[in-house]
Amino acid sequence: MTASHYIGIDIGATSIKMGVVTDGGKLVSRDEVGTAEIGNPSTFVRAAQEAVLQLLAKGRIEKRSVGAIGIGAPGWVDHHRGIVRELTNIPDWENFPLAREIEAALELKTFVDNDANVMAVGEMIHGAGRGHENFICLTLGTGVGGAIIIGGEIYRGAHGLAGEIGHLSLNPDGPKCACGAAGCLENYVGNRFIVARALEIIEDRPDTDEGSILLEMAGNRPENITAKLLAQAAQEGDTVALEVWRETGQRLGTALAGLVNLLNPECFIVGGGVAKAGPALFDRMRETMESLAMNKLGYSTPILMAELGEDAGLIGAATFAMLCSEESTTALPGT
Amino acid sequence: MTASHYIGIDIGATSIKMGVVTDGGKLVSRDEVGTAEIGNPSTFVRAAQEAVLQLLAKGRIEKRSVGAIGIGAPGWVDHHRGIVRELTNIPDWENFPLAREIEAALELKTFVDNDANVMAVGEMIHGAGRGHENFICLTLGTGVGGAIIIGGEIYRGAHGLAGEIGHLSLNPDGPKCACGAAGCLENYVGNRFIVARALEIIEDRPDTDEGSILLEMAGNRPENITAKLLAQAAQEGDTVALEVWRETGQRLGTALAGLVNLLNPECFIVGGGVAKAGPALFDRMRETMESLAMNKLGYSTPILMAELGEDAGLIGAATFAMLCSEESTTALPGT
Repeated sequence: MTASHYIGIDIGATSIKMGVVTDGGKLVSRDEVGTAEIGNPSTFVRAAQEAVLQLLAKGRIEKRSVGAIGIGAPGWVDHHRGIVRELTNIPDWENFPLAREIEAALELKTFVDNDANVMAVGEMIHGAGRGHENFICLTLGTGVGGAIIIGGEIYRGAHGLAGEIGHLSLNPDGPKCACGAAGCLENYVGNRFIVARALEIIEDRPDTDEGSILLEMAGNRPENITAKLLAQAAQEGDTVALEVWRETGQRLGTALAGLVNLLNPECFIVGGGVAKAGPALFDRMRETMESLAMNKLGYSTPILMAELGEDAGLIGAATFAMLCSEESTTALPGT
Repeated sequence: MTASHYIGIDIGATSIKMGVVTDGGKLVSRDEVGTAEIGNPSTFVRAAQEAVLQLLAKGRIEKRSVGAIGIGAPGWVDHHRGIVRELTNIPDWENFPLAREIEAALELKTFVDNDANVMAVGEMIHGAGRGHENFICLTLGTGVGGAIIIGGEIYRGAHGLAGEIGHLSLNPDGPKCACGAAGCLENYVGNRFIVARALEIIEDRPDTDEGSILLEMAGNRPENITAKLLAQAAQEGDTVALEVWRETGQRLGTALAGLVNLLNPECFIVGGGVAKAGPALFDRMRETMESLAMNKLGYSTPILMAELGEDAGLIGAATFAMLCSEESTTALPGT
């Protein structure tokens, strides 16, 4: 029987999403649990086992129609051995053989990779990356996730560590980064830095009423300002929010120009919550990239918005499982 | 008859080198002409035709033992179509069908690529890259040449423009670069910037006798100071030269750290004239890279010195021809 469905699991710092996805990329059944509750590796395996069986029952999907399970994890993953080496912001995951454990619990072939990598695969097959085989995917959020797709495949590098676009330094004299370097992209465009920048602008203004509705939107509590709120405020034309997104676009554009010179991708795909900020962010990002990159003879590199939205990680993980299981069952070339 | 020899042609801004190289990477016969004399495309084709025939005659090598011709050109090359799109610092080469013209003139299969790319191939097969399939090659000189090898193949990107490592910006507020951006790596570690920096240090010193023999080595003429002289002076322990190379190492290390985070290569290979500066350059480069890169769990990325020396471009071009002709005659996989 040919598989018609794949399970996707998206491990995040705050929540773990699980879902059943068709081979056409449609999410038919989903569940979400707080990472704090099931974030420990062995708890996770038992919780995932239960949740997956429930999802299948709820969606009336026979287990034998499921091709494989795909898991995206936010950190360093050894995809080939199915091992999570370590997770950023989630303790206790050192060298955990996740694929093997989930396979044992659910008797379904399981593939694991970095969350940004599986998201990029989802976009390649079912989203903005359709028709592209060489692109770079950025996911903006608390951190900056990055994935490099070359020849239709995830480029992982020598130890599975490639794609850390958030830790490309824009300025060695810039703010100190948690990674040990300074002035990393993430230090300028990660959610909390964007929020901090908004607060800075508000504070520096002689009169906060100068056309900014941001504080009002935050119920006059600066601590309520989030990246999401800043995206909404930009859509309302708020001057502080627009300024913050333009600065963010400038930083991102600078990083993308470096990536154009280095990797000459067909396009970029930008997703994640922050990407919702719209033209203020994207226009400045494009302008900056175009003005700084060595685009020759009119070639330019399109910047596309990711299409899979909130469940991109989930759909990506399932799609990744589909691709991996196709690869592992494909006949040898030439036969 | 199996080919035992390959022709390599290395087009440089000041000289064009041509040579016959064995399939083992040994240069058996070589010639060099000023670029000013034969730098025009049609002059070049005629000059190359003559020179190659003379080289074969001189080395008593039968033309039928030559497998192919490889050409490295300093600029933008469309390898697949054998076209030179444009050359940096050499005018008149716009969209010139170099492979076709040389094939017509010499009746030997011809392959063209960017000079840094063919150099990287030379190092991979016959030099410091033996045993590596995923590495990044930097050639330091007037500019900074870059090549990315992935899975044993040149990574060219969507339009053949990948690998411009010299135009990775280290600081958007840095000096303006000819490429349109600012603070590019090349603006700090290109030959003339290194020389300018040395002059700056000499000028800033209250007393130039403070342990520096550099000016003396330059015959007391600052205009005689070159990157080559600075490399020699560093070997003699000259304090100005050592300082310049340490600063250069710092800039290079910063760039390499970004490349580690982005591409996680197996190693770096650094070549070109400037690379001769020795430990002052390499030690600082390694230290800086190690301290800034996200090297996890003790993984580090070796920085190797290129091994093919002055004729790296020539040997690289010939080796590139060998690989390309092997590829084009190899039986299909599985058959």
